[in-house]
Amino acid sequence: MRDAYSDQLDSIRDDLIAMARLVREAVTSGTTALLEGDAQRAEQVISNDADIDALREKLEERSFELLSLQNPVAGDLRMLVASLRMVSEFERMGDLAVHVAKIARLRVPEIAVPPAVVPMIERMAAVAEVMIAKVEHIIAESDVAAAEELEAVDQEMDKLRRNSFRELLGSDWTYGVEPAVDIALLGRYYERIADHAVSIARRVVFLVTGEHPQYA
Amino acid sequence: MRDAYSDQLDSIRDDLIAMARLVREAVTSGTTALLEGDAQRAEQVISNDADIDALREKLEERSFELLSLQNPVAGDLRMLVASLRMVSEFERMGDLAVHVAKIARLRVPEIAVPPAVVPMIERMAAVAEVMIAKVEHIIAESDVAAAEELEAVDQEMDKLRRNSFRELLGSDWTYGVEPAVDIALLGRYYERIADHAVSIARRVVFLVTGEHPQYA
Repeated sequence: MRDAYSDQLDSIRDDLIAMARLVREAVTSGTTALLEGDAQRAEQVISNDADIDALREKLEERSFELLSLQNPVAGDLRMLVASLRMVSEFERMGDLAVHVAKIARLRVPEIAVPPAVVPMIERMAAVAEVMIAKVEHIIAESDVAAAEELEAVDQEMDKLRRNSFRELLGSDWTYGVEPAVDIALLGRYYERIADHAVSIARRVVFLVTGEHPQYA
Repeated sequence: MRDAYSDQLDSIRDDLIAMARLVREAVTSGTTALLEGDAQRAEQVISNDADIDALREKLEERSFELLSLQNPVAGDLRMLVASLRMVSEFERMGDLAVHVAKIARLRVPEIAVPPAVVPMIERMAAVAEVMIAKVEHIIAESDVAAAEELEAVDQEMDKLRRNSFRELLGSDWTYGVEPAVDIALLGRYYERIADHAVSIARRVVFLVTGEHPQYA
């Protein structure tokens, strides 16, 4: 009995990692759609979000089953509840990738991002992808040290976001209101994806150490 | 024993409602700070967010205690897990009110919202406040019908958001890039507050009916 139960807990961890991978693909693909003005790819990101939602449902059901039937003790209980909350965060990250794809779709056949801002958006997306990949590793290995590193990576995202405002609101900005609004919202979406990654990593730290991480 | 336990479940409900009330006050006060360019009030919203976070922590600790010590059965188990997720949503709503206050603070002594857009922002804030008040009632009374009504109110928020884009990106927009970016982000914050309200209401519906609401 206990063995089947351990297997079930492991399979929840595997599904969380699978969910992270789907989210990372959505971010990659949404960004490509955005920077290439590729409507078809944008549609694909939007429709593939159903896979992330389906995985969420599967994970929620199984977590509740385990919670109800196994009366898990303190550690496993916290793990299952944390999983349920991570699932919500991954789902939100998928939604944010969909928002990126929707901005891409809205501007086709134009490209929402003016050439001068492409490197910044590319960097934001790259940072977001790295952070999600780290979260996969952190969940797989319960790696507390990697979770700390993640906070440093998140600081780069915050800096990129501040720079983006400096650019948008500077006197050199000649692209007008529409791209400025798009870039402001895109920056918000990537920043939120990064925030969720940090939040998930902190949940893992709390599960492993029993303490809420307090980084400087 | 069972009686003390029931009291504890009730007190979790009371604290959820208290949390909603703090969030509603933060939205009201953040909006006033925004529309009056009131730096002091903005600071207050930002510092009061610590109260919301403290209530979150208290609620999380007690929910876990009940989960660990009482081995709650199916219905109570779902209620406790749902509470933990609602707590996260209320915390986010508080953070969003802080974002509104931060835009207010950033533009002082100017006012971030141009006169022509004030009625729209006022309406968005009013809709958000009404939705939070409804959520308080829905949690207090387990009122499934009111949860359905909430979805209709949320449609007004979506419409306001669409109108705001029409205004920002229309040829009549003469306020330039900075207010456009502010309004786009403010619209996003109010919209997300409304989304969280809907999501919390849906969790209550699921707890009461055992079914995920599927509204047209």
